[in-house]
Amino acid sequence: MSAPAVVVIDPVTRDAPVPVAQRLRAADADAPVVRVTDLGVTRGDGVFETIAVVDGHPQAMRPHLERLQRSAAMLDMPALDLDTVAAAVRRAADLHEPAPSLLVKVVVTRGVEGTEQPTAWAHAFAGPDYSGEHGEGAAVVTLDRGYRSDVAQTSPWLLQGAKTLSYAVNRAALREAARRGAEDVIFVSTDGFVLEGPTASVVARFGEVFATPRTDLGILAGTTQAAAFALLQAQGFETTYRAIARTELDGVDGLWLVSSGRQVVPVRRLDDRDVPLDRELTAVLLKGLLARTE
Amino acid sequence: MSAPAVVVIDPVTRDAPVPVAQRLRAADADAPVVRVTDLGVTRGDGVFETIAVVDGHPQAMRPHLERLQRSAAMLDMPALDLDTVAAAVRRAADLHEPAPSLLVKVVVTRGVEGTEQPTAWAHAFAGPDYSGEHGEGAAVVTLDRGYRSDVAQTSPWLLQGAKTLSYAVNRAALREAARRGAEDVIFVSTDGFVLEGPTASVVARFGEVFATPRTDLGILAGTTQAAAFALLQAQGFETTYRAIARTELDGVDGLWLVSSGRQVVPVRRLDDRDVPLDRELTAVLLKGLLARTE
Repeated sequence: MSAPAVVVIDPVTRDAPVPVAQRLRAADADAPVVRVTDLGVTRGDGVFETIAVVDGHPQAMRPHLERLQRSAAMLDMPALDLDTVAAAVRRAADLHEPAPSLLVKVVVTRGVEGTEQPTAWAHAFAGPDYSGEHGEGAAVVTLDRGYRSDVAQTSPWLLQGAKTLSYAVNRAALREAARRGAEDVIFVSTDGFVLEGPTASVVARFGEVFATPRTDLGILAGTTQAAAFALLQAQGFETTYRAIARTELDGVDGLWLVSSGRQVVPVRRLDDRDVPLDRELTAVLLKGLLARTE
Repeated sequence: MSAPAVVVIDPVTRDAPVPVAQRLRAADADAPVVRVTDLGVTRGDGVFETIAVVDGHPQAMRPHLERLQRSAAMLDMPALDLDTVAAAVRRAADLHEPAPSLLVKVVVTRGVEGTEQPTAWAHAFAGPDYSGEHGEGAAVVTLDRGYRSDVAQTSPWLLQGAKTLSYAVNRAALREAARRGAEDVIFVSTDGFVLEGPTASVVARFGEVFATPRTDLGILAGTTQAAAFALLQAQGFETTYRAIARTELDGVDGLWLVSSGRQVVPVRRLDDRDVPLDRELTAVLLKGLLARTE
């Protein structure tokens, strides 16, 4: 038992005739694992997922694994053995010292240049503490992502909708938010549509209807957003996937960022406007999301 | 002496009161150097340069180092000790087995998450062989980069003009080029201007004038392009930095991709049109670029 914990996955590809148990190897989290010739670090060339493990239960494991596979396919990487990845997630969580809530990040890089063999690992760690934001909400700014909303269709090489290791822009956007006195970001397309946060999906309330942007706008299909929609439906609300114009958010009846890391955080301020904060509904959603056993 | 060679730079920041010699440490190129918690590999969060070393002479060392510093500043990373980086480049080249032409890649990541200490290394290796393309030219396709040409001014968090580790899109563009039967890419802005290649600057000939896109279009200042312009001026040609419309390339009198890795490669075909190939001038430029002693 140690914290954090790393499990190296070798091989991670589906075509390798190796039993799952022989593919996993615990590694020292403080020891280097990645070579300087690995395309993961030289080119940000790889994919990842971050999976919450709450009370020992990996949440939305299958949707995360399927999204990892989709991301890998968008990058023309070989098909991954998802049973092996799932076993690595569980193993990493087991190796971590017991905690009510963990995150396990799974990374699959294209591998050392010239080898065509992906490098992969699962890394369990205690995530950031969002308890303040859960109650008080986050100040959020909208930032231009620079792309049109149809870019995933017109220019697939831009990899919009794939969860890649090339996240420097997402990090720079969060620094820009801090400069503006905010804690998080909602990206907007050049043609004025709401997209997603750097590490979260957006859920907006309009009356009794909860909406999230359609994934054909070049954004990720949110695993936590899907779970949140199921909870909202159980509460009797209508949910919909649609294009949401930035201007619509000026009249929104509630706004949330949802993700594996933060579960659900309400937005209390968007750019220069206050957003209605529903603490009760947020608490219901948070409780429901944390109670997931799969 | 071994090939390739890696020199770890620790610390790489200017504020650390450590003599240059004590900052460098040779490492086994086959051994892992990067931890799984390093933001370089988890977020593609860092910067790099690739410097050619020809007959023992690092080429355009100072412009490369200054660009590395600019990239780091654009990412809000601490200021780098460029004397240390230069020493690491030379040390890595010295440790590599002798070769007429090497490349040294310098990588500086934001470091292990939470430490605020960049991770850095220099890695010497034999680059790809461009001798075929030097003579015969490359087939190139133009691809939409998805951004307007003014995005570096309007949206600096998109990091256009910084040489970051988040290069997955550049790699995906090269795969798209291969699918279209081409070897390389010239990116174009959504408003129709020529930008750069994934790993090269663009030089276009119109009559007796050689033009390259202005760097305020969200592209890198080309170190090899600058050297090529000096050579062209010595040949009596006029050179200019300006916005070049994609449509102008249909009537171009010559087109080249220039970079540290390839020096200068002529474009023989752009999308569905042949481009005039000037083997003699290309040979003059190649010879001049390879003869640089600094």
